[in-house]
Amino acid sequence: VIAANITSPAVVLVNPQMGENIGAAARIMANFGLHDLRLVAPRDGWPNPKAQAMSAGALDDKGPVRIYPDVASAIADCTLAFAISARLRDMEKDVFGPLQGCALLKERAQKGAQVAVLFGAESSGLNNEAVSQCDALITYPVDAAFNSLNLAQAVAVFAYEWGTDREVEQMATPHEETGNIADKKTQFQLFEHLESELVKAGFFFPPEKQTMVIRNIRNALTKARLTDQEVRTFRGIVRALVKGRGNKG
Amino acid sequence: VIAANITSPAVVLVNPQMGENIGAAARIMANFGLHDLRLVAPRDGWPNPKAQAMSAGALDDKGPVRIYPDVASAIADCTLAFAISARLRDMEKDVFGPLQGCALLKERAQKGAQVAVLFGAESSGLNNEAVSQCDALITYPVDAAFNSLNLAQAVAVFAYEWGTDREVEQMATPHEETGNIADKKTQFQLFEHLESELVKAGFFFPPEKQTMVIRNIRNALTKARLTDQEVRTFRGIVRALVKGRGNKG
Repeated sequence: VIAANITSPAVVLVNPQMGENIGAAARIMANFGLHDLRLVAPRDGWPNPKAQAMSAGALDDKGPVRIYPDVASAIADCTLAFAISARLRDMEKDVFGPLQGCALLKERAQKGAQVAVLFGAESSGLNNEAVSQCDALITYPVDAAFNSLNLAQAVAVFAYEWGTDREVEQMATPHEETGNIADKKTQFQLFEHLESELVKAGFFFPPEKQTMVIRNIRNALTKARLTDQEVRTFRGIVRALVKGRGNKG
Repeated sequence: VIAANITSPAVVLVNPQMGENIGAAARIMANFGLHDLRLVAPRDGWPNPKAQAMSAGALDDKGPVRIYPDVASAIADCTLAFAISARLRDMEKDVFGPLQGCALLKERAQKGAQVAVLFGAESSGLNNEAVSQCDALITYPVDAAFNSLNLAQAVAVFAYEWGTDREVEQMATPHEETGNIADKKTQFQLFEHLESELVKAGFFFPPEKQTMVIRNIRNALTKARLTDQEVRTFRGIVRALVKGRGNKG
């Protein structure tokens, strides 16, 4: 979760229909440290038992959600409000991706300003009047052929993007792999081969520790990212050790 | 959505309990172009009408989900599998954030390899045995005091992170604002002031175009990001124009 010295953005659900989605939105917001949920004229009124049930406690902890009759009153204290919308609008508005949009909102919030994001109803999204009250749009990089997000999922994407400090979590520099990493089936065959031989050899003592010891062995071998060739080598090693034991015994 | 020349990652739900979450997961996956959903021993069997209902068509379009009896068979064809887990484990596994984890998975998938991410059951997450079969963990940057995500929301975060091409969507360089941007209430007061005067002046003709014309005016003024001082100036302008008209009329 990002630093606390930033004003939490208002998440405004405009005419939300299903209590389940309101509750799920509150839960994912709390997961990422967001606690300013505002509802504009929720269809089923408020409080809503289904919202409560889906919130996993998020609605209990943070006190009452605030309810407003219209968008104008819900964002009256905000100096920057972005509409989350999948549809392209024929309005003269800037359209940002979530990274850019969040960066702009955070820049303002870090100065102590109240900012907001607006989400429309499940059935139809934000209407043009609501969008016209916003400064810009944020559009997610969705598949054009399947672009309708569930309301709570749309909130999840924003909450995660807001809660992720991209300057802290640097992109990894993936190291180049050499060789052909064995697939899991091949890896498991090695594990099972080794373990069956260890059982026969009476390696697991006391028996109640077997599960834990096997797990530790598998963890160690998984970390090695064995190639197909290395798996073959290890299986040869197991066979050789077993055969040697037979010879001696 | 990212380029198609990359193998779609397998999203593996281990012992999922609620059909609703399976359906919601399938929907958000489809939103971000992911179509390889695998279920390990779903509690309520398969097919599941509640999953179907929540998938908004995602389960219809992509053909049957694949069902497996255990984790080993679900990821047998994968060469890299990451466990999504909020809990810290006392195992010897690398732990990545979602950006790093996704970058590593994508690097492998771009070479045509099959990769996987595993999600645990709603009640308890992934058990240690399942985690031990994975190469590493991905942990989300959640609030430690409220760290339990809904299953479908956890899938949403991954699907979004996978579907976002961070090299294409550059971080914006937010420009520095000067002055004190007027809050929405102040902006709306200007709009309403202007519009009421325009009505009195008979500006809106024909009347059926009033809504659209008002929206265009508001869009134009919103884009200007007026400061408090500028709003005062504009309101003065409106008053001055009205007064002048009165004098002349």
